Amino acid sequence: MEIVTYRPIGIIHSPFKETTGVPRQSAGAADIKGTIEVFDKFSEGLKDLNGFSHIVVIFHLHMVTGMFLKACPPWDGKEHGVFATRSPHRPNPIGVSVVRLERVDKNILHISGIDMVDNSPVLDIKPYVPELNPAGNIRIGWLAGRVEGMNKSKSGDL
Amino acid sequence: MEIVTYRPIGIIHSPFKETTGVPRQSAGAADIKGTIEVFDKFSEGLKDLNGFSHIVVIFHLHMVTGMFLKACPPWDGKEHGVFATRSPHRPNPIGVSVVRLERVDKNILHISGIDMVDNSPVLDIKPYVPELNPAGNIRIGWLAGRVEGMNKSKSGDL
Repeated sequence: MEIVTYRPIGIIHSPFKETTGVPRQSAGAADIKGTIEVFDKFSEGLKDLNGFSHIVVIFHLHMVTGMFLKACPPWDGKEHGVFATRSPHRPNPIGVSVVRLERVDKNILHISGIDMVDNSPVLDIKPYVPELNPAGNIRIGWLAGRVEGMNKSKSGDL
Repeated sequence: MEIVTYRPIGIIHSPFKETTGVPRQSAGAADIKGTIEVFDKFSEGLKDLNGFSHIVVIFHLHMVTGMFLKACPPWDGKEHGVFATRSPHRPNPIGVSVVRLERVDKNILHISGIDMVDNSPVLDIKPYVPELNPAGNIRIGWLAGRVEGMNKSKSGDL
């Protein structure tokens, strides 16, 4: 199949300059603030975004090196298929995070709940709409009872 | 900024052969079934995915032509910035959908809630974990009171 190419629409400014110490999930980083700088040529696309309290950020995990089909989360100690985990070492290192949108200042989005490394390229931004989440019974397989461990974990933890 | 390139890890088999008539959101397509064929070289990454009732599918909107910074949803009639909408005509046409995982048969994922066009390239699959969703007050801006219209709408509707 053909290769897919994207051009970044912005860049993340985050207090995390390296991959170690970054919260593994936005839910574990509620107090961490940063910004998304949307490049000028795309800023027109931000109209009305300020009415949303949360946004979905799709970004490139640009510092991740290496891909593994199995992942062994340190807070679990067992091996799972990478698609059944949130490991960044994926065939395509794409991050999807829901962050709080504090305010919009022209082309700068002030956000909190940052689990991204500084300078990560942003590929897309979508409004977060909880009504689109699935309803009813949700099963979370091997993660059942382990979500808190995941949220509290930071990259580089052993 | 540099271009980002990804290689598809699989392909979607869907009853929708064209872009018209496709539900705009997975939430509006609960009964629509299809499969994700994960390419053999990545199938090892599916271990333990069968324990999850829902998965997040990140896919390329390969049939979308044209990008607009403003979108005017037909069920709303007003113009919004594209990043404040779920329009497929985005600078980077990336789809993120939560679908129900009915069962895993080797490298074939049987799913329902399909809002994808046939042959869409799949870039990543992640487990859906509701505990990672934001808690507390969520504001959805101009979409407030309009989500049902979005869910019932299909592409090509006027």
